[in-house]
Amino acid sequence: MNQIIQPKILKGTRDFLPEDMAKRNFVMEQIRKVFEKYGYDTIETPVIAYAETILGKYGDDGDRLTYSFEDSGGRRIALPYDLTVPFARLVAANWQDLPMPFKRYQIQRVWRAEKPQKGRLREFYQCDIDVIGTKSLIAEAEIARVVVDVFKELGFEDFKLKINSRRLMNAILESLGVLEDAPAVIRSIDKMDKIGEEGVREELEKKGFDSGKISRLFKVLAEKDFADYDTSEIYEFLQLCKDFKIDEEYLEFDPYLARGLDYYTGITYEVICDEAGLGSLCGGGRYDDLCGLFCKEDFSGVGVAFGFERIMIALEKMGKLKKIPLNSKVLVTVFDEESSGDALGIYTSLIEAGINSEVYFEPDKLSKQFKYANKKKISFVVVRGSQERAKNEVTIKIMETGRQKTIPENQLISYIKGYV
Amino acid sequence: MNQIIQPKILKGTRDFLPEDMAKRNFVMEQIRKVFEKYGYDTIETPVIAYAETILGKYGDDGDRLTYSFEDSGGRRIALPYDLTVPFARLVAANWQDLPMPFKRYQIQRVWRAEKPQKGRLREFYQCDIDVIGTKSLIAEAEIARVVVDVFKELGFEDFKLKINSRRLMNAILESLGVLEDAPAVIRSIDKMDKIGEEGVREELEKKGFDSGKISRLFKVLAEKDFADYDTSEIYEFLQLCKDFKIDEEYLEFDPYLARGLDYYTGITYEVICDEAGLGSLCGGGRYDDLCGLFCKEDFSGVGVAFGFERIMIALEKMGKLKKIPLNSKVLVTVFDEESSGDALGIYTSLIEAGINSEVYFEPDKLSKQFKYANKKKISFVVVRGSQERAKNEVTIKIMETGRQKTIPENQLISYIKGYV
Repeated sequence: MNQIIQPKILKGTRDFLPEDMAKRNFVMEQIRKVFEKYGYDTIETPVIAYAETILGKYGDDGDRLTYSFEDSGGRRIALPYDLTVPFARLVAANWQDLPMPFKRYQIQRVWRAEKPQKGRLREFYQCDIDVIGTKSLIAEAEIARVVVDVFKELGFEDFKLKINSRRLMNAILESLGVLEDAPAVIRSIDKMDKIGEEGVREELEKKGFDSGKISRLFKVLAEKDFADYDTSEIYEFLQLCKDFKIDEEYLEFDPYLARGLDYYTGITYEVICDEAGLGSLCGGGRYDDLCGLFCKEDFSGVGVAFGFERIMIALEKMGKLKKIPLNSKVLVTVFDEESSGDALGIYTSLIEAGINSEVYFEPDKLSKQFKYANKKKISFVVVRGSQERAKNEVTIKIMETGRQKTIPENQLISYIKGYV
Repeated sequence: MNQIIQPKILKGTRDFLPEDMAKRNFVMEQIRKVFEKYGYDTIETPVIAYAETILGKYGDDGDRLTYSFEDSGGRRIALPYDLTVPFARLVAANWQDLPMPFKRYQIQRVWRAEKPQKGRLREFYQCDIDVIGTKSLIAEAEIARVVVDVFKELGFEDFKLKINSRRLMNAILESLGVLEDAPAVIRSIDKMDKIGEEGVREELEKKGFDSGKISRLFKVLAEKDFADYDTSEIYEFLQLCKDFKIDEEYLEFDPYLARGLDYYTGITYEVICDEAGLGSLCGGGRYDDLCGLFCKEDFSGVGVAFGFERIMIALEKMGKLKKIPLNSKVLVTVFDEESSGDALGIYTSLIEAGINSEVYFEPDKLSKQFKYANKKKISFVVVRGSQERAKNEVTIKIMETGRQKTIPENQLISYIKGYV
């Protein structure tokens, strides 16, 4: 006797059953469709990669959290930690074959060697969209429109796309004489949501900033008093958002918005939805040099990452994924051994009419066949006993209402197609 | 200065650019649609798995070719070698929540630590479909219909679904008194295509089989003289194929068909297409115990695996993937700085009409904008200079024919929607 192996999976990874997949694919398809409407095409990068193309790009913490190993040929391999670095590598290797500006989206899994806990997975999907190879502000506005469109399409109502200008932020810091320390200041301001103004002040004072300067910074941000600064970027951007007919109710200029990362150089974005109560659902901005690590060409671009797993949690919480169907619409039951050929005839005619259908595989208690239909969220169950067969009829049970109806067999397809 | 890292990928892995992805997604979508028409739902299993759930199931060779490593917490991890074992593990862990019979398809990447060469990749997609939890022959016939449908849908014309009955094969071997050695005999017969009858005879003689018995075996198979044997399985199956209205020209009973694997116990299948000249494009059969390694329940089932990468090569060779479009249909050019708002207006109205479109990001030479449109396989380019603007007109260039047409702006959408 073989010993039985526990069929377990690593914490922080997941098996997706048909109902999970139906929901996930439904949401992904909606997101994809918006991206594709605006001319973004998709790419795919390998899962197993040379470690040197992955490691050393996310700081020590990132390296520690990257799955890496040596293969049997002595090569150092790593699994992607995010999609930005593999994208940069792909562009560096293929830019001469790509249309420029290059508009791409990418939805793939990434891995983090985390201690798994609520909201922290070892294996999850990322969903990125970028346009590179142009410095035009139209790119920023287009990405803003795509983001707003995605969240509207998914059924979010109460969300805001917060925007800020890194150029404005830098102008303010320059006037205070702390431009050199911009990354440190921005990293602290980024925590405003979590630790409040007092917390940020404390942190900045600890970092050695003059308390008078901190007060002046807070005053400028709180009062939105930007008369002394270069606000051209944000105003031009907002004008372009108008040209793009982005509904203003979804846009919010937020001078506090910092987006921790150093590499943003222009407009930055973040999507917040109070309804979902999960923090940021999407974020990104303009950067100057995507591929510098991998090639001499520099590609400026704008990109955002959607938190796919958080979006799934939010939609689930908001009750938006309750009615996602599985694939089958009709189950043809099998009454007895000798009528199974008859059932197969009905089944194949449904399939050939383009109606996703199933036939039960063997004559069995009808109650069992109905249970199966329920489990597969099937809308119509077709029953045909000897009486119906004698009269060339079928009985249809509409599963949602429980109503039954007997109709001539040759009306079955039009009945199902016409049912609203 | 940072040192530049070579943007290279491991041999046997691939970057997929937008044109590759358009083709791959087009083919996957066609396959998916057929599966879903017959009520198969999809699942997804993790990439990083406990090594004990993957290793030791494919023989020594399989273990050697499985990517495995120790993670930072000392856990042994492996990457899936195929989709059957992760599927079996998922069923063992979740069968009480699954509808039974369970019809699933799965399209995911798998990994092999191969020395890469033509047709051997380290990272590739598999595409499996199975129904488990029923012993009914209807399942075999349904899978046969799905397979034929997939290849027809993909545009294959000259293909055969070869079928055989493991039960018939066993009856023949029993009458020759060599049933105990069935696996060895079947493995040799499986090589008929490659080494011919003489080669198989030699191999069987080397294995110690009596040459008289070998001659009798060959005679029975060659003459299809099955009067003495139990052929009920194959005849019932062929009758069900008729009930399923499977076009007979695609079916071929092939008593030589062996499918090397030991675990098949009933009908076996294989798809051959001379047009493609690539050997088997799909294969599988009935098995008795999917999950025995992982649980006490035994699930009988029928399944086939489609060679997705081979199918892609075959379709490419047959010229079936030449006209797969990318996502954008229309490019709105930008004439000069002051008319960019105007271009954005046209762009957003196209998008809102549901036409996948793009606007060029900055005023630039029209020749450059047309080159971009070509690279993105865009069908229509919209140009609007000062003359057209003055008259509320737009000029459309139809990229395939090179023809241009100037029409009132408010007819643009209906013109593009109506263009055949």
